[in-house]
Amino acid sequence: MSDDKIVEKILKGKIPLNEFNQYYANLARNHQDLLTKPKGSLGKLEEYAVWMSGWQQKHKPQLDKIHCIVFAGNHGVVKKKVSAYPLEVTKQMVSNFKNGGAAINQLCNLANINLKVVPIKLEKPTKDFSEVKAMDYNETIYAMQLGYNSVPKNCDLLILGEMGISNTTSASAISCALFNDMSIEESTGLGTGISKKTLENKISVIRTGLKLHGKKFDRVDQILSAYAGREMAAIVGSVIAARVIGIPVLLDGFISTASAATLILFKKNILDHCLISHLSSEPGHIGILKHLKKKPILDLDMRLGEGSGGAVASLVLQASLVTHNKMATFSEAGVSSKI
Amino acid sequence: MSDDKIVEKILKGKIPLNEFNQYYANLARNHQDLLTKPKGSLGKLEEYAVWMSGWQQKHKPQLDKIHCIVFAGNHGVVKKKVSAYPLEVTKQMVSNFKNGGAAINQLCNLANINLKVVPIKLEKPTKDFSEVKAMDYNETIYAMQLGYNSVPKNCDLLILGEMGISNTTSASAISCALFNDMSIEESTGLGTGISKKTLENKISVIRTGLKLHGKKFDRVDQILSAYAGREMAAIVGSVIAARVIGIPVLLDGFISTASAATLILFKKNILDHCLISHLSSEPGHIGILKHLKKKPILDLDMRLGEGSGGAVASLVLQASLVTHNKMATFSEAGVSSKI
Repeated sequence: MSDDKIVEKILKGKIPLNEFNQYYANLARNHQDLLTKPKGSLGKLEEYAVWMSGWQQKHKPQLDKIHCIVFAGNHGVVKKKVSAYPLEVTKQMVSNFKNGGAAINQLCNLANINLKVVPIKLEKPTKDFSEVKAMDYNETIYAMQLGYNSVPKNCDLLILGEMGISNTTSASAISCALFNDMSIEESTGLGTGISKKTLENKISVIRTGLKLHGKKFDRVDQILSAYAGREMAAIVGSVIAARVIGIPVLLDGFISTASAATLILFKKNILDHCLISHLSSEPGHIGILKHLKKKPILDLDMRLGEGSGGAVASLVLQASLVTHNKMATFSEAGVSSKI
Repeated sequence: MSDDKIVEKILKGKIPLNEFNQYYANLARNHQDLLTKPKGSLGKLEEYAVWMSGWQQKHKPQLDKIHCIVFAGNHGVVKKKVSAYPLEVTKQMVSNFKNGGAAINQLCNLANINLKVVPIKLEKPTKDFSEVKAMDYNETIYAMQLGYNSVPKNCDLLILGEMGISNTTSASAISCALFNDMSIEESTGLGTGISKKTLENKISVIRTGLKLHGKKFDRVDQILSAYAGREMAAIVGSVIAARVIGIPVLLDGFISTASAATLILFKKNILDHCLISHLSSEPGHIGILKHLKKKPILDLDMRLGEGSGGAVASLVLQASLVTHNKMATFSEAGVSSKI
């Protein structure tokens, strides 16, 4: 959509969201029960097919056009030495994505996913959130709107990933600000693999930031301004776009989930169109998921980001849909039903 | 191999098994640490790649030729009304497999898996194990040898599945006989979806069988003779073949795992070349896995059998290998390493 104010309009409640379509979900559920297997024996695969039906508004949902968008941004807080890698790695990894060498490239090839990489002003890191707000209002809205505009209309499933050195630091701060019972210590992990000493420093930097900006936010843009990176605000914008257009979303790990979770400040059930790909080994992830009442599809101790968990989880959704769409029914196959 | 006594020879310790090759596993681990991601950040995907290296004896293991074998057999104990479906469904489902209509067909198509269906004497069910031994020695060895012979030599990964009305009843009995702390009540579930009353009957039938044949077995063939179906003995034979040839195996759910677990009577670490695809929602599965000290790749509340969980889990292994084999290294991609 070419309306460059649409994110602001949506967050003011002026644009209708798409809702889960119970009619198609019921059709899908009824269809499942005709297939040659005991009822419910495909477990979550059945649930995901029904869920996809409700969001795609089709009783036989499709996964022909899966898109993965990886947003990249740089974080001012990196200067506080919270990461194991230098700032320039964000840009280097963007080149790696573009040259096809990263994990997400291989996973997208395997799973037949279209990959788009969107670096956002890498030459201009956000400000250090332990000193001042990371972004002003305009910068925040700009990144959200860019995320919104990045979502293709013609899309069966959207996978959202990110790259940004130091962004677990942002994500931990956001988690603690959003959810009162999440302590800094429990929500902060080793990120790209920092030492114990760096972890202590990271916790202390997050504590300073939380003292400065507090935990009370009424609006999504406010909490993002305080703590987020541009790639995280862009994820929020994409999640909104998917909800307005009616595209099911696979969030990746800790950072994508923490970013998307800020949207509960706007509307409680705003993430109903999102599944969680996997449980990240970053310790803050499980805490957020408890609050969002969402269970991850996979639990593989992954913590890479880039949308990598989303790409793997999309294979499970593909398994869900091939069984849903292509299995024979009891009557087609001439199989006796229950005694 | 054309030696029709080989299963007996192996179980007498006369044929060498293949062992995990630490040299190739170390090469694979070293290779992982060069790839453009923080060390360990692909979690289990990295572990599976290293594990595949050790069993395939290649530092870049392949999944070009994945084979799934679904064995089918009929069980005499069905006459005790332990199942929700009639005996003839085994044969009907075999036709469904051959006609491409079942869940496993769709999943094999999705995951690029060669599917072979091996029905074993469906017209001659095993005997009712709550009255007499299910099979005599020759019948047991025949099924094991058939399973052995069904494994293709040229195979990167073997997925083992089954179909047999009433075979959760057999699997529960085997679990309780193998592992003293597994109670009948805790190890017995709803199978294809039986009523609470049928479940009580199923538990009582298993109890009768266990009283009759006891829990003390010295040999694999003995416990299989007492309780198993032909398809379960065939799975055991296939697991042995894979271990002798050196093929990594994905076991499917409760029945495949219970069958394979009987091999610990032969050799404690005999299942080192096997991964568990998923945690079945059949309650006995988790108990066996605890004893085998194995964690399932997926947990999707599946309980279909047919190798369906194995086919889905093979997608995760494929994700593991595309990242292992195709990602750029830090030096290739010009990405800075840790500070």
